[in-house]
Amino acid sequence: MSAVVLSTVEQLRAWTDAARGRGHRIGVVPTMGALHEGHLALVREAKRRAEDVVVTIFVNPTQFGPSEDFAAYPRDLARDVGLAESAGATVVFAPSAAEMYPEGETTRVSVAELTDELCGRSRPGHFTGVTTIVAKLFNAVGPAVAVFGRKDYQQLEVIRRMVRDLLLPIEIVGYPIVREANGLALSSRNAYLSPEDRVRALSIPRSLAAANGAFSSGERSVRVLRETVRGALDRAGLIVGYVELADPWRLTVLDDELLLEGATLLAVAAQVGKTRLIDNLLLGEDSSPDVPSGAE
Amino acid sequence: MSAVVLSTVEQLRAWTDAARGRGHRIGVVPTMGALHEGHLALVREAKRRAEDVVVTIFVNPTQFGPSEDFAAYPRDLARDVGLAESAGATVVFAPSAAEMYPEGETTRVSVAELTDELCGRSRPGHFTGVTTIVAKLFNAVGPAVAVFGRKDYQQLEVIRRMVRDLLLPIEIVGYPIVREANGLALSSRNAYLSPEDRVRALSIPRSLAAANGAFSSGERSVRVLRETVRGALDRAGLIVGYVELADPWRLTVLDDELLLEGATLLAVAAQVGKTRLIDNLLLGEDSSPDVPSGAE
Repeated sequence: MSAVVLSTVEQLRAWTDAARGRGHRIGVVPTMGALHEGHLALVREAKRRAEDVVVTIFVNPTQFGPSEDFAAYPRDLARDVGLAESAGATVVFAPSAAEMYPEGETTRVSVAELTDELCGRSRPGHFTGVTTIVAKLFNAVGPAVAVFGRKDYQQLEVIRRMVRDLLLPIEIVGYPIVREANGLALSSRNAYLSPEDRVRALSIPRSLAAANGAFSSGERSVRVLRETVRGALDRAGLIVGYVELADPWRLTVLDDELLLEGATLLAVAAQVGKTRLIDNLLLGEDSSPDVPSGAE
Repeated sequence: MSAVVLSTVEQLRAWTDAARGRGHRIGVVPTMGALHEGHLALVREAKRRAEDVVVTIFVNPTQFGPSEDFAAYPRDLARDVGLAESAGATVVFAPSAAEMYPEGETTRVSVAELTDELCGRSRPGHFTGVTTIVAKLFNAVGPAVAVFGRKDYQQLEVIRRMVRDLLLPIEIVGYPIVREANGLALSSRNAYLSPEDRVRALSIPRSLAAANGAFSSGERSVRVLRETVRGALDRAGLIVGYVELADPWRLTVLDDELLLEGATLLAVAAQVGKTRLIDNLLLGEDSSPDVPSGAE
């Protein structure tokens, strides 16, 4: 089945209005393209939950910092359309920057507090870029459900918060991280990695799994669990952005002196060569590299 | 015909979902209550444009500054419901503060640039409070059309900008200022005025009309037109917040040295006793106190 490719909000709205008019629920999977199996799992999940699925492909300039990889970010629309289609997308929405940020636009949607730590600390303005574009895409699509990957854990929680706070009538589904057989979390940015980088990058999922193993064996010290990961990344020659244990809902980071009590997020950002990778797990969750059993 | 009074988003959404299911278009008139004939004109205008009209009544804490009149703002729900009903409202939505700003909410919608001058200059954060609550109300109601008064000219333009930028599928209608026979613009805050204050407050519409008359006679000096208004307000003993000529779309204020070329907004904020009043007109427009001929 072939997907319709649309590039203007007007075309998109005409299409989604007609779909809703036929009684269809619409699912949306917002992406920046460079689709991989992780994205396709989100599309298939959306398709299980809605008659029509809109995959948006937009490399959003407002979520990149000045020294980040906006210009270099991989773009291949024809390939992405084929992949989205194969996973069940009925529409691919691929607007221009001028369509999403027309001359004279000055509105921003921002979420405070949840964005203070983790990626928010080193990427000022990043999440305001994310919530602004996601709000625009939600309003343009009018979805009943939206599916996001848990690899971008903080992004997922920030979007959940935005949707709840702004009273958007949209169900947000977080889908488990999809990994290679060796454990590496799928990411469009993995395309930047040299073969040597890929080997070194495996220290991320392996150290997360090691910390999770220690947790399962009873280790509750924030310091010990952090050092398990940080030490492994240092030894592999990665430049650590952060290794944090955090409250999985409020995203406040936990002090080294604490002992864990409830559910805890373990989240990592690290640079392998010039490539920034992120990964995370909820301690106590199965962190094996198997394909996850389903969305929450 | 009697209006349904609802206080939770869940009730409201059930109602509006059902109305849309019957093929009804929904109009919304967001207010802070203390309804007067100006609000009722908005409700009637909404009713001309949609089968159902939701009047929201919510004194929004986030748009008041710490030294402003949030606590004192007049509240009389029973009276407001009767008035809204009489003008054709089918639903009155009167939520609590906890319903609109539940514990842990941290999302804000903000519009830059348009909010820098005029009321934005002396009321920091005011317009972010306005756009945040209006975004929430729009998402809770799901209206096809929303009607706002032009007395709050800057607010109207800021909301137009937000709706355009966030791709909300909502038509925004600006309705002309409704005035007393003597010219005073209707405002819920007029209730604060003593009889003496009311006489002094007339210097606002009269000086605006005088400036408009001078404009019609060919006066184009920003300085002369501003001074026409400012001098009259000073003589009446008002404390001037601002008297500005501004671009009516970008809301940038014009320098005294300029001569007017295109359409121009003349906008005023002034305190009469402790009461802050605002008013405005588009130079060249009919500024008589007659009931306006219709919305734009």
